[in-house]
Parts: sequence; structure tokens; C-alpha cells
Amino acid sequence: GRQILKEMVDELPALYELPQKEAKWVEDSLEYNTQGGKMNRGLIVVETGVAIMKHQGREPTNADLNRFAVLGWAVEYLQACMLMADDMMDGSVTRRGNPCWYRLPHVGLLNTNDFLMVEMFVYKILKRHFGQERIFPWLMDLFLETTFQTECGQLLDSICANCELEELTTERWTLIVKYKTAFYSFYLPVALAMLVTGVRDKKAFDTARDALLLMGIYFQAQDDYLDAFASPEVLGKVGTDIQDKKCSWLFAHAYHEQSTPEAIKFLDEHYGKCEVGSQEESKIKEVYRELGLQELFQEYEEDVENRLEDFKSQVKAADLPWSVFDRFFQLIHKRRK
Amino acid sequence: GRQILKEMVDELPALYELPQKEAKWVEDSLEYNTQGGKMNRGLIVVETGVAIMKHQGREPTNADLNRFAVLGWAVEYLQACMLMADDMMDGSVTRRGNPCWYRLPHVGLLNTNDFLMVEMFVYKILKRHFGQERIFPWLMDLFLETTFQTECGQLLDSICANCELEELTTERWTLIVKYKTAFYSFYLPVALAMLVTGVRDKKAFDTARDALLLMGIYFQAQDDYLDAFASPEVLGKVGTDIQDKKCSWLFAHAYHEQSTPEAIKFLDEHYGKCEVGSQEESKIKEVYRELGLQELFQEYEEDVENRLEDFKSQVKAADLPWSVFDRFFQLIHKRRK
Ligand SMILES: [Mg+2]
Ligand SMILES: [Mg+2]
Ligand SMILES: [Mg+2]
Ligand SMILES: [Mg+2]
Ligand SMILES: [Mg+2]
Ligand SMILES: [Mg+2]
Repeated sequence: GRQILKEMVDELPALYELPQKEAKWVEDSLEYNTQGGKMNRGLIVVETGVAIMKHQGREPTNADLNRFAVLGWAVEYLQACMLMADDMMDGSVTRRGNPCWYRLPHVGLLNTNDFLMVEMFVYKILKRHFGQERIFPWLMDLFLETTFQTECGQLLDSICANCELEELTTERWTLIVKYKTAFYSFYLPVALAMLVTGVRDKKAFDTARDALLLMGIYFQAQDDYLDAFASPEVLGKVGTDIQDKKCSWLFAHAYHEQSTPEAIKFLDEHYGKCEVGSQEESKIKEVYRELGLQELFQEYEEDVENRLEDFKSQVKAADLPWSVFDRFFQLIHKRRK
Repeated sequence: GRQILKEMVDELPALYELPQKEAKWVEDSLEYNTQGGKMNRGLIVVETGVAIMKHQGREPTNADLNRFAVLGWAVEYLQACMLMADDMMDGSVTRRGNPCWYRLPHVGLLNTNDFLMVEMFVYKILKRHFGQERIFPWLMDLFLETTFQTECGQLLDSICANCELEELTTERWTLIVKYKTAFYSFYLPVALAMLVTGVRDKKAFDTARDALLLMGIYFQAQDDYLDAFASPEVLGKVGTDIQDKKCSWLFAHAYHEQSTPEAIKFLDEHYGKCEVGSQEESKIKEVYRELGLQELFQEYEEDVENRLEDFKSQVKAADLPWSVFDRFFQLIHKRRK
């Protein structure tokens, strides 16, 4: 991680004539925004790569591990760019326990140029470490495509702010989370590991994508569920989805799938209009409970588990190690934070 | 132009499941931000491509013209992305006679996601029209590299806001304008035309780049000069460089090359601290005149003309048509707006 950062910052003065001050700025921005996360997405690339190689009967060398790690970092850089842009769009205050980069007084609107630079570093990492390889154009294309998919998700999410509650359906919810989160967090890291271990079968990528998007969508459903029902101490943050009029799993199901006239009336009056911790906000959570959303969520969880199980034969037919999918699911299944 | 826009927007519902409303949003954003400019950079690609082909003894077909035009549009999309980001960072009010996109009430911070999408459309254009060609990876690399160079220029420019006047030197000025403007406005369009007409000689690209950066830097010097000395009626806008403490050609030369103790004292007291139209601002322009900057600028103009003339033999040795460089220079030389 630090080494990738360093090798890129070190070339800035020679290749782009950046003075000390500016090179330091870029270094600080990369340090602040790309380091210190949980690295989940980056680690998925490594774990998946190792599992596929073993499945192929090969023992990963240090060089292999390094290649997986480099791609893992490229994913982390892409995520950093997206989060820096998202925090500014959302007016968020903190990220990973620190103030958001754009909130630092000396940064402010410069955040915009900084996340554009982080985005370009993704392609610099790819070019430096994979520029001479046959898979290079596919890696480039996968990152560009995933970036665009995530931006489509952000667009879907943002436009909700101007939507009537009527429009915040479960179909829209699925679309938002699939594009906003699932492609880059679940499909991208696994697809990278597949590309770099020599998987070329289109069917294998399609199967992996379907299974991973299912998990990614479930992951966001959990996020929405915990936003309302997890205690802030366990969750590490205070949920604001009701106040923010989010198209959340809970809201979409309450309003469109399980609704009663009374529930709709109350939501129409207060959803997105009441503050965190207010009586109305508690009452909305109460409505969610009365509509049986906690039970519905459990059913949904089991349904995901079953549908994932159905992928097992397809995954094996595509000659991919089922352990990868099983393990990711165990990591997120019934998480409490 | 419209056709490229349309073919990309049309595929959004099928490829990214975008609903009507979101597809319309993207269309509006592309329409507002990529159409209706002067298209100078786009036209340079076409003109240069035609000139090189004729120089090679070939007559451009409609298919050739179309290829040049497509790359011209890709440059225009990159520029649109950069301008949308720049306007937000600068807090600008108007662009091409309309309110900046981010200033429209229904847009606001969504501008961020919109310019990220415009950036991705650059690569969508390239993939659709050149994805099967041998030059495709070079086109991709050239756009990515130019994007990063422009971002380096934006960083250099932005960090000036926190600089002491002492640091706003002519060297820094050159660095800023070279990276912020010259690479993408002058080198990129010509380099694209060279790539697509089959030029492969590295020396030819180096020569073209040196000559074009010279012109690009001169172009920005004119911009800075006109900001202070052109009448707003002719210029079409009111210059704000003095108020904004810009590292302009005039300031850098006044403070560091032609300075007197009195001039430095006055600039220290008022540069970047007085408003447009104020007495102090007029006095600073007066100081510029007294220091002989108008004459110095004329000398600089002649110097550029001579240095460009010196490139003539190199350009011919690289088997490039000199007419291209000559014509661009005539377009900008001694411009009054
Ligand atoms: Mg956010
Ligand atoms: Mg957001
Ligand atoms: Mg959430
Ligand atoms: Mg600006
Ligand atoms: Mg600017
Ligand atoms: Mg100007």
C-alpha cells in the first residue's frame, strides 16, 4: 500500500514538473483518502486470487500475491475517489472516524481536483504493473465500466431527493444499490482476480456476477436495516436514512409492499421531514415493526441464502471455487454492524 | 455532435437499466455542457488530420473526416468535464453565456456526478469508434495522460490561492498554464490527428509538442494580458485576475522581472485584495503600464513568433505539414479577444 503510493508520488516531480509543495499535497491527499480503510475490497482480490489458483492446482508465488495486492489497491483507489466525491455531494461530516477530506479548511473545493487525481492514479497503477500484459486492456475496460456503473447508481440515488415517495419503489431500491455499491464492491474485486488468474470463459464471469450482485444487494439491504434497528453504539454511527428521505429497503417495502392506508398517511406526513431522534422518527420505526418488516427481512435473508445455494452448481460448472462465494456470504450473513 | 450524444444516451436504458428520468438527466447534462461551445479544439483535430493526410498525398474520405470529428468530440467532452469541475471549484457564475450547470437550482452538487459521467463518456466514445483498432490503447493512454496533466495544472493553479506573492513567479506561471491549458488545448488535438493518420515517429510527436506548448503558453499569456487591458465590451467579460490574486503573466512579470520597490509595495498592499473596478485595481494596471509590461508583452509576442519560426525546419524534418502550425499561430497571433 505505502509502496504503491510512494512509487507514484515519487515520479511526479520528474514526469510532471510538480514542485515540492504540490507533490506533498498529492501525497497527503492519497495518504488521507486511500489508507486506513478496512481494505475489504482489496483483500477480496487477494483471497479470491489465491483460492482460484489453488483450485487450478497452482501454488501462488510471492509475485502472484503481489499482483493480486496491486489490483486490490487499484480497487481501493477507485473507492476512495467515489467516496471523496460522494461525501461532498452528501455534505457528510466524517469518514472512517476522521473529518471528510473536503471538510478540512485548507482543502475545501480543492477536494474536486483531488478525487479526479485519485481516479487517474487507478489507471497509473494498472499501467505501471500490468501495462505489458495481455489482460491490460480488459483491466482498463473493467475499471472504466465499473466506474460508470457506480456513477449511474449515484445518479439514481441523487435523483431520489427530488422524487415523490410514490416513486421510491423496491424496484428502484434494487436498481440503486446494484449500481451504486454491488458492482464495484462485490463484482469488481472478484472479476479482477478471475482475469489475472487466467479465467477467460464469459459464462464464468456471468455466473460470478449474478451471484455477487445478489450478495452486494443483500449487503446494502442489511445496511439499510441496521440504519434503523441497530443501536448506534454497535453500529458506530447514528442512522439518518429516515431524516434524509432515503430510498431504503425498509421504506420501499413499508410504502409499496406491506403498506396500510394509515402507514402511508404517516409516512407521507413525516418521512424525510423529521429529525434524527425525534418522536416522529421513532414512530416511523414503530410503523416498520408493525408492518412486519423485521420478519420480512428475515425471510429475505433466508431467500438470499437459498438463491445463493442455487448458484452452487453453476459456479462449479464454471470451474470456479465455491469456497470464495461461500466465504464472502459467511462474512456478511447476519452481520450486526 | 448530436449523433454521438444520441448514440450514447440511447444505449443507457438497455445497458445500465436507467429509467426514462435518469436517461433524460444524462442527456440534458451532455446537451448543456458539451454542445454550443466554439468547438475550437474539436475543429483542430479535423483540420490537422486533413492537412496531414494531404501532406501524405492522400485525399481524406468521408470516413476519415468522421474519424477526426469523433476524436474532436472526445476532446470536447474532456474539456466539458474539466470546465464543469473548474467552474464549481472557482465558484464561477456563467459559462458560454449561460449559467454554469452547477448553478442551476435543480443541479447543484449533482454537478459532481455529472462531470464524472462526462469524463467516462470520453472513453465510451473511444471504445465505440476505435475499440477495434491498433491505435486504441494509445488513444486511451493519451487521453488519460492529458487528463492527469490538466489536473496537475489545476492543482498548481489552486494552490496559488494559499501562496505568498513572492511565490507567484514567472516560472510558476509557465508551469501552471502549460499543464492547465496547453496540453489539452493545443497538444492533444494535434497528437490525436497524428495518431489517426498513421504518424508513429516519436521525434515527430516531441517536435509537435514543443511547438504547440509554446503556442499554448502564449495563448494563455494573451488571456492574462487581455484580462487587464482589453475593454470588457470587446472581451465579452470583465477581467477579475487582480481581484482574484491570479498568478497571471502580468503580475508575475511585474513582481519578479520588472519590479521597483514602489511597485512591490503597492502590489503587496493591494493585489488580490481590491475589487473589480476599484481605484486600487486601476492603479495596479497603471503600475503594469509604468513598469513597461505592455512593451514587454510585445517583445514576448515577437519572441514567440521567432521561436516558432525556429521550429519550421524541425517540423519539416519530422515530415509534418508546417501549414498546421503556421495556421494555428495566425489564428491566435495578436488576437484582441
Ligand atoms: Mg454518502
Ligand atoms: Mg451519496
Ligand atoms: Mg446506510
Ligand atoms: Mg475557472
Ligand atoms: Mg480554475
Ligand atoms: Mg483569464
